[in-house]
Amino acid sequence: MLTDPALTDLRARFGDRMSASPASLAEHAQSESLVTAGLPDAVVFPHQADEVAALARWSTTHRVPLIGWGAGTSLEGHALAVSGGVVVDFRDMAAVLEVWAEDRLVRVQPGITREALNHALRTTGLMFPVDPGANASLGGMAATRASGTTAVRYGTMRDNVRGLEVVLADGRVIRTGTGAPKSAAGYDLTALLVGSEGTLGLITDLTLRLHGQPEAVMTAVAAFPSVRAAVDCVIATMQMGLQPARIEFLDEDTVAACNAYSRLTLPPAPQLLVEFHGHSAGLAEDVARFRDLAAEFGADGLDWADKPEDRTRLWAARHAAYRAILASRPGAKAVVTDVCVPISALAAAVEETRADIAASGLSGPILGHVGDGNFHAILLVDPTDAGDISTAKALAHRMAERSLRLGGTITGEHGIGLGKRGMMAAEHGAAWAVMGALKRALDPLKLMNPGKLVPDQP
Amino acid sequence: MLTDPALTDLRARFGDRMSASPASLAEHAQSESLVTAGLPDAVVFPHQADEVAALARWSTTHRVPLIGWGAGTSLEGHALAVSGGVVVDFRDMAAVLEVWAEDRLVRVQPGITREALNHALRTTGLMFPVDPGANASLGGMAATRASGTTAVRYGTMRDNVRGLEVVLADGRVIRTGTGAPKSAAGYDLTALLVGSEGTLGLITDLTLRLHGQPEAVMTAVAAFPSVRAAVDCVIATMQMGLQPARIEFLDEDTVAACNAYSRLTLPPAPQLLVEFHGHSAGLAEDVARFRDLAAEFGADGLDWADKPEDRTRLWAARHAAYRAILASRPGAKAVVTDVCVPISALAAAVEETRADIAASGLSGPILGHVGDGNFHAILLVDPTDAGDISTAKALAHRMAERSLRLGGTITGEHGIGLGKRGMMAAEHGAAWAVMGALKRALDPLKLMNPGKLVPDQP
Repeated sequence: MLTDPALTDLRARFGDRMSASPASLAEHAQSESLVTAGLPDAVVFPHQADEVAALARWSTTHRVPLIGWGAGTSLEGHALAVSGGVVVDFRDMAAVLEVWAEDRLVRVQPGITREALNHALRTTGLMFPVDPGANASLGGMAATRASGTTAVRYGTMRDNVRGLEVVLADGRVIRTGTGAPKSAAGYDLTALLVGSEGTLGLITDLTLRLHGQPEAVMTAVAAFPSVRAAVDCVIATMQMGLQPARIEFLDEDTVAACNAYSRLTLPPAPQLLVEFHGHSAGLAEDVARFRDLAAEFGADGLDWADKPEDRTRLWAARHAAYRAILASRPGAKAVVTDVCVPISALAAAVEETRADIAASGLSGPILGHVGDGNFHAILLVDPTDAGDISTAKALAHRMAERSLRLGGTITGEHGIGLGKRGMMAAEHGAAWAVMGALKRALDPLKLMNPGKLVPDQP
Repeated sequence: MLTDPALTDLRARFGDRMSASPASLAEHAQSESLVTAGLPDAVVFPHQADEVAALARWSTTHRVPLIGWGAGTSLEGHALAVSGGVVVDFRDMAAVLEVWAEDRLVRVQPGITREALNHALRTTGLMFPVDPGANASLGGMAATRASGTTAVRYGTMRDNVRGLEVVLADGRVIRTGTGAPKSAAGYDLTALLVGSEGTLGLITDLTLRLHGQPEAVMTAVAAFPSVRAAVDCVIATMQMGLQPARIEFLDEDTVAACNAYSRLTLPPAPQLLVEFHGHSAGLAEDVARFRDLAAEFGADGLDWADKPEDRTRLWAARHAAYRAILASRPGAKAVVTDVCVPISALAAAVEETRADIAASGLSGPILGHVGDGNFHAILLVDPTDAGDISTAKALAHRMAERSLRLGGTITGEHGIGLGKRGMMAAEHGAAWAVMGALKRALDPLKLMNPGKLVPDQP
């Protein structure tokens, strides 16, 4: 609970851009997943960095936590309040500030979503490729080190954030990075802050790398005789040095759900959905090589989507896969898992996971950005059935353990939030305490998104 | 000076793998550049991480600095002792530990050089592409966030280190990163440590990304009518989305020096030395596009080096350019500068720098990895002439200031070391103090490479 002086002070500063109404608090306690926490004490909607800096000083004075909020699409409860505090909703800081087309850079405010950004860029010949599926905010994507379907070619947020403006816990505003494509000038604070999940500071603007809109695009789907064959085809594709822009795996359950939900007529078999970007000759060569590889692994021909509307339809279906899977069982909720393993372990990881899910009795379609070893099982549960939920959570836990055993990570792209914090020690060992020491150095009062990512502090 | 107990303890631990002989100390106080400092108190040659951890505990007990040493090729005095201490020379930790060909990863000890690594990989079809010119150690390259000629396509050490084993100041050994291609699990400690110049810990092993040896390679040189034309051709190349594996600029003075030293017969004009890697069709397309662009900017035809031996000769000459420039004025030493600007500012940065050098009366050939905005002036000085040296240092300082004014960085790839520390505040502002806070969190006694990178601590 905010003290009266704290509340008065906040209201004086933000006026009607502050809310403590039950509806607003409830809206900012929602989550896309089953991860839940408590209500915040208030929500504010800043317009500029110096207001965020003032908020940080206020937070320090009154010892009130601050929690950043972008589009609310996190799957691990990153933006939920575990001990009250003020949610800083960046919806009003959503502008494109500058486009440097020659340098392929753009500076944006954190609240802009990736769709809005690409819409703003559409006449420039440039695009921001990172695509986690949800129409997330760029600030949130940076804070969680998001990636998605195109990371296999264009990288994750780690690779596409050139610099940041960040408000620290004590109200200092720092800038990281420069306009130069590389730098060897000291600690890479940009990289430290990308993925820090709001625990080190609040991002108030981002300079992002842009990429040329591809001259030519080829999208295809291919059905494989088995999960192993599809995954082995991906491994061979990556090992041959082909650079698909996306290479997505959908198991037969996912395909069935997508067919029903998005009115597709894909064969009921494990599928790869692949896209290549490039110039004409190089693209044709890549496509030919992939066709040969797919045939080698038993694909029954490739179905190329030549028309842009067919491509759009396929990718829309892929992006709707999560909703399609949820819709396949009315009333169900999902425990969404997220692991990432070395490519060489991908087939084993997927097969062991499928067997584990099958033995559990739950339904859990699998899909993923397999070109970088990342996949998800969407574990369907009856939200009123505690047995379902505990079975799903145990499965998710075993998936993460399996990933570690195979040399991978507990999360490829969804992040830690509240959902995965219990596994940080297993992944990082002594390095987890190092994260805690870094956190203490920048936020000794534990006011920036407390209860997340780092160990409980001494 | 080491106390007697400290020295006795060190000798007991390392025996004849410890030296305090004047020759050994002098060898480890040398620098490739004019940057100098004092002598260390001792040099040790560890064989494994637990010895390095013991050394860190010893260092804590006796309050003695530790300074990592790879191949000694740093240009900014990174590995020099400013207040005595023990140099940890990794020459005996130079093994390839594991190659995971399917995952395109290799695990190595820090002392291995990039040439030795690529020699070990030669039959695997894989390579480690980062190439700073010097035959540096991989530990040193990671510690300084090195890059070089191929960064324009393959990235810098930031992009090619997957994980690290690091001994911290207090002797803890941590591992960062996993075998998975990406992860969203917490702070990116790998990225924080890459480029930390030994101030946060000592790297005891590295997992590196490998790339396929290119199926086909095309190398060409092209002479341009002016510096501006050559640089504008680079800008257009990058903006078109072409991906050269290397694109190097040499001004006419550099060309003259290379001709004399490496017995080439390049026309005495600004040159681009460019290389493309790829599959046959895509490669031919890239090459054709680049040929058209070069013609547009007035290049007098491209001279393609079709034979591997011609390619090798050209790149050997490029790598020898520094020695060639030094040899062009017998007895001279060099102040080597290193700035990196946004591509859009590259022509202005190079032209202003040339004018500034011309006005100074010094000779200062310019060359650089211009595809990512990075270039160097090699300022030749008479080492016995204090006037020369101060003129060169003032020029170098103005280059760095100019880079900042143009949106760039004070160092693209050579790092901070002793040479650039005075400019950190100008580049980072309040963020420099944040680096200091992170340093204090991990090394409160200031024993890891003291006097480098971070501000003097309170």
